[in-house]
Amino acid sequence: MSYSLDSKKIARATDEWLEQRGVTKAEIAEIAYFLQKDYVPDLTMEECLQSVEAVMEKREVQNTILTGIQLDVLAEQGKLSSPLQEMIENDEGLYGCDEILALSIVNVYGSIGLTNFGYVDKIKPGCLKRLNDKNGPTKNTFLDDIVGAIAAAASSRIAHRKQAEKEEKNGM
Amino acid sequence: MSYSLDSKKIARATDEWLEQRGVTKAEIAEIAYFLQKDYVPDLTMEECLQSVEAVMEKREVQNTILTGIQLDVLAEQGKLSSPLQEMIENDEGLYGCDEILALSIVNVYGSIGLTNFGYVDKIKPGCLKRLNDKNGPTKNTFLDDIVGAIAAAASSRIAHRKQAEKEEKNGM
Amino acid sequence: MSYSLDSKKIARATDEWLEQRGVTKAEIAEIAYFLQKDYVPDLTMEECLQSVEAVMEKREVQNTILTGIQLDVLAEQGKLSSPLQEMIENDEGLYGCDEILALSIVNVYGSIGLTNFGYVDKIKPGCLKRLNDKNGPTKNTFLDDIVGAIAAAASSRIAHRKQAEKEEKNGM
Amino acid sequence: MSYSLDSKKIARATDEWLEQRGVTKAEIAEIAYFLQKDYVPDLTMEECLQSVEAVMEKREVQNTILTGIQLDVLAEQGKLSSPLQEMIENDEGLYGCDEILALSIVNVYGSIGLTNFGYVDKIKPGCLKRLNDKNGPTKNTFLDDIVGAIAAAASSRIAHRKQAEKEEKNGM
Repeated sequence: MSYSLDSKKIARATDEWLEQRGVTKAEIAEIAYFLQKDYVPDLTMEECLQSVEAVMEKREVQNTILTGIQLDVLAEQGKLSSPLQEMIENDEGLYGCDEILALSIVNVYGSIGLTNFGYVDKIKPGCLKRLNDKNGPTKNTFLDDIVGAIAAAASSRIAHRKQAEKEEKNGM
Repeated sequence: MSYSLDSKKIARATDEWLEQRGVTKAEIAEIAYFLQKDYVPDLTMEECLQSVEAVMEKREVQNTILTGIQLDVLAEQGKLSSPLQEMIENDEGLYGCDEILALSIVNVYGSIGLTNFGYVDKIKPGCLKRLNDKNGPTKNTFLDDIVGAIAAAASSRIAHRKQAEKEEKNGM
Repeated sequence: MSYSLDSKKIARATDEWLEQRGVTKAEIAEIAYFLQKDYVPDLTMEECLQSVEAVMEKREVQNTILTGIQLDVLAEQGKLSSPLQEMIENDEGLYGCDEILALSIVNVYGSIGLTNFGYVDKIKPGCLKRLNDKNGPTKNTFLDDIVGAIAAAASSRIAHRKQAEKEEKNGM
Repeated sequence: MSYSLDSKKIARATDEWLEQRGVTKAEIAEIAYFLQKDYVPDLTMEECLQSVEAVMEKREVQNTILTGIQLDVLAEQGKLSSPLQEMIENDEGLYGCDEILALSIVNVYGSIGLTNFGYVDKIKPGCLKRLNDKNGPTKNTFLDDIVGAIAAAASSRIAHRKQAEKEEKNGM
């Protein structure tokens, strides 16, 4: 059978894989809310969720989510080759491919998301604390960065949209 | 007179421009120390300073420092054209060229510095608080990101070197 | 007067500055056409122009265009400080801030544009040949990379859209 | 057994995995030579090989090589999950994680390598032609970009070093 890209299938798989790894879009929206609430007084969780969904509709983001989760799952199953297996399994601090892939998610709504990404990746708010737990059998070396990156990109989208709303209101 | 790149001159100018903007390498080293002290128990300020100096010897870093400071200075003098002048003068939140340029500094010791960059860019420790002060006549739209990026890159360098020291000690 | 971002003004300035530097959107569309014509048999110049316009509507792209052209203009007028002045004036090969800024344009439609950007930046098709001419008084150190980056991003957009059209046609 | 990063093991694995995928450092050096020969009249293959080796000694590069080759091998064995399996197996044009990872290699010697990377990724000189052959059972979706990126980074290193040599000779 000849290959043909099916964008709907990719989008569906992205949602399913994220769900299978125990992450809901609402949880990611909570991180976006945490990042933006002090700058946007009337921000609602609904808006944050909409922005998370918009970020996750981008093909670049879907590709990165699938690739990162795939590597986490294979590391968990011990199916990667040594020494990559050990590096990913142990979330080696000097291994940076997780940050590189996450950056491509952050960038979909521009470079202004960079600071927010680094910030949540460091302080691990909300579900990031759970994802970053190193004691269980679950390996989320890529996923925690991916979730932080989606939240950061969603925050950037909110910032751009709030500016548009403000300009509209002012009749600009 | 024909043009010829003079690397020593570029390096010297980088040091001088940073000094003229009121930032010392020791202050940047303090941010690197702040970032790494919890992971490296025996870390000294001297080591942090050495890493800041190593980062600042890289041509890519020097080019970015000169370019960013130049834009800050011109914004301060009102010599940029509108509307770029107003965006840089007011450190517009939706303007991200400062983050883009800073990222190229972070990357000189690898992508592991991304998190540290975002973190200090958000919480503004040490001299970053002063640089980010929006009330004075000084405009540091690019400089605060640059200083945070140098500190983050220096932290990455420290992390790589500490690993090398550990492996040497263990006879690996 | 208090500062307030005016997105329409930024968009207008981007168009004007590009025009003042002698580059038309049609010329950029021609480069996108050159890049995509072998992959998209029924591609029209009109579609390429629409994609160039879509790329140029993005705030990230506008910020980068304004910043790059500003540096080119100031270099031309000899208003940058030495040694940055000489590096930009002479399009120093070891100065990479032009490539860094251009990359942020390429990325707005994903990383698949990277190859196309590097390719046109090397072979200089269409108006890139003129922009890269080092003999005249005009300095386009940033602009040639920016134009190539817009064309590359427009090509990525075309590739994404052609896939969507194909899937729609196939009733997927 | 507790985990501990062994840098020598990582470096060795990088060399071995590349060899197993049928790529020699000499072949990568040939691409670097192809990229630089017109700018550096006295360039030798030996210098190119040294630069390829220097690039491959960087941890960031090694991590990316291991990750990319791992994904290629798993795709070849059909061990990735659908629909990621099909995308990587067929080197899907709208999948850009290979370019993202390659970019992190290009950047180790600065952003000036971007153009060279895109150029060779497009025209596929030397061994890149073989790696990009889609007819055999071997899948090199990541590897061809990685090899091009190493060659581009090696070219950047050569450019930086030639400048240093020139300045030394001129007694600067």
